[in-house]
Amino acid sequence: MRILAIESSGRCASAALLSDGLIKAEYTLDTGLTHSETLLPLTDKLLTAVGGEAPEVIAVSAGPGSFTGLRIGAAMVKGLADGWKAGVIPVPTLEALAYRYYGYEGLICPIMDARRGQVYGGVYRFDEEKGLVCVKDGGAYELRELINFINGLGEKTVFLGDGTDRYKELLQEELKIRCEIAPAHKRYQSAACVAVYADEAGEKAVIPATAFVPEYMRQSQAERERAEKNG
Amino acid sequence: MRILAIESSGRCASAALLSDGLIKAEYTLDTGLTHSETLLPLTDKLLTAVGGEAPEVIAVSAGPGSFTGLRIGAAMVKGLADGWKAGVIPVPTLEALAYRYYGYEGLICPIMDARRGQVYGGVYRFDEEKGLVCVKDGGAYELRELINFINGLGEKTVFLGDGTDRYKELLQEELKIRCEIAPAHKRYQSAACVAVYADEAGEKAVIPATAFVPEYMRQSQAERERAEKNG
Repeated sequence: MRILAIESSGRCASAALLSDGLIKAEYTLDTGLTHSETLLPLTDKLLTAVGGEAPEVIAVSAGPGSFTGLRIGAAMVKGLADGWKAGVIPVPTLEALAYRYYGYEGLICPIMDARRGQVYGGVYRFDEEKGLVCVKDGGAYELRELINFINGLGEKTVFLGDGTDRYKELLQEELKIRCEIAPAHKRYQSAACVAVYADEAGEKAVIPATAFVPEYMRQSQAERERAEKNG
Repeated sequence: MRILAIESSGRCASAALLSDGLIKAEYTLDTGLTHSETLLPLTDKLLTAVGGEAPEVIAVSAGPGSFTGLRIGAAMVKGLADGWKAGVIPVPTLEALAYRYYGYEGLICPIMDARRGQVYGGVYRFDEEKGLVCVKDGGAYELRELINFINGLGEKTVFLGDGTDRYKELLQEELKIRCEIAPAHKRYQSAACVAVYADEAGEKAVIPATAFVPEYMRQSQAERERAEKNG
């Protein structure tokens, strides 16, 4: 499959093109600009660089993550897919982030700052037979809940994602196990991980673009406020 | 340090910008075009995207690798460094490639197709205290020599680099240990790895651009032919 992968769930805007099982191009920006300014131009440059041929499938980091980022990605993917008559493969953001540590022996804990004292996180491991295995479901957690869970397992763990920047001290204080925090080149989301995840998922994972909805995992601020207002 | 990293030793042309310990941008192309056509334009796009500010240091994948690729990178780096009055940090290509598996528990064996029946390769591991440790020096080897060495150690090993494409069957037949081949998103050189390696090496690793020479690790074809001709 020729897959264009889009990642806009976090601080980085990222696009990658996978073809014949290889990453032909990857472009990632962490410039502080909103994804609405960066994501489409960088995708355009990337596709132009590889010859402009349309992909058969668009893989998209589906969430959890920044609501605005996910919506920018979703809107762009739906627009492109409509024009190209391409299908979409939704890729769980936390699993794709865990792919940064593909083959790691130990637990992998991606955490993304979800504000309001929470992180989007989960716990995973790579199994030689089964590939990525979920040890604790992705969700919105208080970080201490994940830390207690991991301390209970007692295994070496790598942490990655922007939650490691926000909660570095808490992690260092509370973790009782061998652990490490990902270095800069493996810390954040990357579209190449989304592409490889989608390629492994294969054609059976393709859905119509119109059926794609981001996986927010939590109510938006507007929904929360409306619910509070309505008692 | 604000580091521009350049990687042109293999099939991918790649540039990355690291600032304040974070990868602000990364752009990698594997289009089959010569690096002389791709490397400077993609670096230009990357620097423009992050605001155009000149880096303080240029980190460059110094070899081993494609002689032509290394020379294109070296020429470009020397030119840019001269204009920017920037220093250079030469980064050993095999070590930077091993950074794809930063934190891996087991042996890491990057192999690059060196033609003439050889690979450029080495064997490394990550030590929690010391970081990347060399187990077998980088050099030009017959792959069987590296395979025998690794079989002798008997440890789980990950292989990466374009040598894994060329010699996949040989690896599968001859290796007697637990091993894996890197998936697409972690298989080849990346400038982000070069940037992080240089950032860890720090200011003491900076040399004047004029002093930089690639590390070929073998005679070029022209040198070999001259030596043969001169007996």
